Amino acid sequence: MRIDMQETANLLRQKNNILFLCHKHPDGDTLGSASSLAHALTAMGKTVRIECNDPIPKDFSFMFEGIENPPFEPEFVVSIDVADTKLLGNELEEKYADCINLCIDHHSSNILYAEKIFLDSNSASTAEMIYLLLGELNAEITPLIASCLFTGVSTDTGCFRFSNTTVRTFEIASKLAALGADTYNIIQVFFETKTKTYAALERLALDSMRFYFSDRCALICVTQDMYEKSGSNESETDKLANLPRQVEGVLVGITMRELKDGGFKASVRTHGDIDASEICKRLGGGGHKGASGCTLCGTKQQAINALLKEVEAEIDVYRID
Amino acid sequence: MRIDMQETANLLRQKNNILFLCHKHPDGDTLGSASSLAHALTAMGKTVRIECNDPIPKDFSFMFEGIENPPFEPEFVVSIDVADTKLLGNELEEKYADCINLCIDHHSSNILYAEKIFLDSNSASTAEMIYLLLGELNAEITPLIASCLFTGVSTDTGCFRFSNTTVRTFEIASKLAALGADTYNIIQVFFETKTKTYAALERLALDSMRFYFSDRCALICVTQDMYEKSGSNESETDKLANLPRQVEGVLVGITMRELKDGGFKASVRTHGDIDASEICKRLGGGGHKGASGCTLCGTKQQAINALLKEVEAEIDVYRID
Repeated sequence: MRIDMQETANLLRQKNNILFLCHKHPDGDTLGSASSLAHALTAMGKTVRIECNDPIPKDFSFMFEGIENPPFEPEFVVSIDVADTKLLGNELEEKYADCINLCIDHHSSNILYAEKIFLDSNSASTAEMIYLLLGELNAEITPLIASCLFTGVSTDTGCFRFSNTTVRTFEIASKLAALGADTYNIIQVFFETKTKTYAALERLALDSMRFYFSDRCALICVTQDMYEKSGSNESETDKLANLPRQVEGVLVGITMRELKDGGFKASVRTHGDIDASEICKRLGGGGHKGASGCTLCGTKQQAINALLKEVEAEIDVYRID
Repeated sequence: MRIDMQETANLLRQKNNILFLCHKHPDGDTLGSASSLAHALTAMGKTVRIECNDPIPKDFSFMFEGIENPPFEPEFVVSIDVADTKLLGNELEEKYADCINLCIDHHSSNILYAEKIFLDSNSASTAEMIYLLLGELNAEITPLIASCLFTGVSTDTGCFRFSNTTVRTFEIASKLAALGADTYNIIQVFFETKTKTYAALERLALDSMRFYFSDRCALICVTQDMYEKSGSNESETDKLANLPRQVEGVLVGITMRELKDGGFKASVRTHGDIDASEICKRLGGGGHKGASGCTLCGTKQQAINALLKEVEAEIDVYRID
């Protein structure tokens, strides 16, 4: 059942011993949203815990300062920024998939698995929704909470560069900055810092860029061999996803990453009216209109062919002008 | 004589036939600030003209829609975002250097050459000052003016990533977005688009990256040879300036560009407390604390040595920890 912000706030007010679930391979939005809500509800006297299937990357550890994550039998289970129970990861999915009371999310691809869902697919990030929800709860937004939320707001919009960025995104960013979010350092860490190994990997990846459909599609393929040569690894590949689309005239940018056990993960980024989630859905994946992903089996060439076939179907109408 | 925003507004209200001067090699801030002021004053019934020593790059041409630039003998000459009369370029410097009535600028390195100066060196861009000035003038901020200003606000802060970005920057960005600035397309054009030739140049430039002072300084050198190989040219090198500083642990990032007639232009970008303008001032250049520039004579190695000597003096205190 879909519910609105006010009902969501009412539910949270009524409950205690609340468990927040983040998605696997956690990012700034799922962690920033869950941690800010956890901080605010703790300050309201509630007992809360955050669980995530994967370890928290060190760049996000600042968010959890003061969060004690005590053991308790959850009275209320809330998934945050999780579009599908599959995205909880094996362990959490097994444990909680059937008993999620509330989902707070902004993915249009959300499969509506939770008992109640507060979904705003026009929101650039779940963190934007949480910012407004904290207002509804009359919760104090401390500088730490502002930083958690700003991390979600900025990372899910590629630092205000993606097409999901709205007037509201800028307004909330400015409010969070005024509330003491450490905007400069957050942006430095997530957008202006490359490890030396990543910088080396990026050069190799850029060298692999190939163009298709009269240069309207660009594709890079990151191989296991490149990880070895650069000293980098899969954990550093997120930022590569935006590179192909940056080339002038490119409408569909694809970044493929060879998996250890065979097959490829593909990130698809599009411009304008081309729907990346349509391309990825037909290959078993999903996501947003401008940014989606899927996993492909077979050889590199088979994976490329499968992707290009779906890209062609979407890009076709734009080939005339 | 330093004057404040109110006096600046009063002066502009009193005058007519106003000439705005931009700096040479014009950027989003000098052009966005001058054009938005020109639009607003034209709407107030005044006759205005904008002059710039160099042609307006095509990405900025949208700013000048409706600006007629009629010929007239200027009653009032206003330089915008011009820290030094030298930066007007030869032709404009010769014509106007001695008769500039007002300078509106945010560079701390401003040499105070104008009769009156409205200077706010805490402002991330001149465009931020113009936004507030238009409020003081009770001028209507149309969507086009909002776009001109947003271009200045975003380009001078590296899209909100540089250390000059403040709470006020975010607030003004959100106001401009709400007033109809075409934020998405502006950011795409100036930050998320690379020509194929630039992408090729960037790869060559990254390959030239070398590290000094225990990896706290990174330097890339763009040669004439690289322009030939990539099909690119000097006009596409602005974005390269931020790349060396992005590598983790780098406090001083330097991008050198070989000039056609010999010598090198260097862009210096710093993190934290290291003052790029100190490094560049001692080499005859200047700029901001986090972003400055200078020109060097001699061979590539001589230019590198000269730069590293000054970097060492600034970075020295940070070598202990």
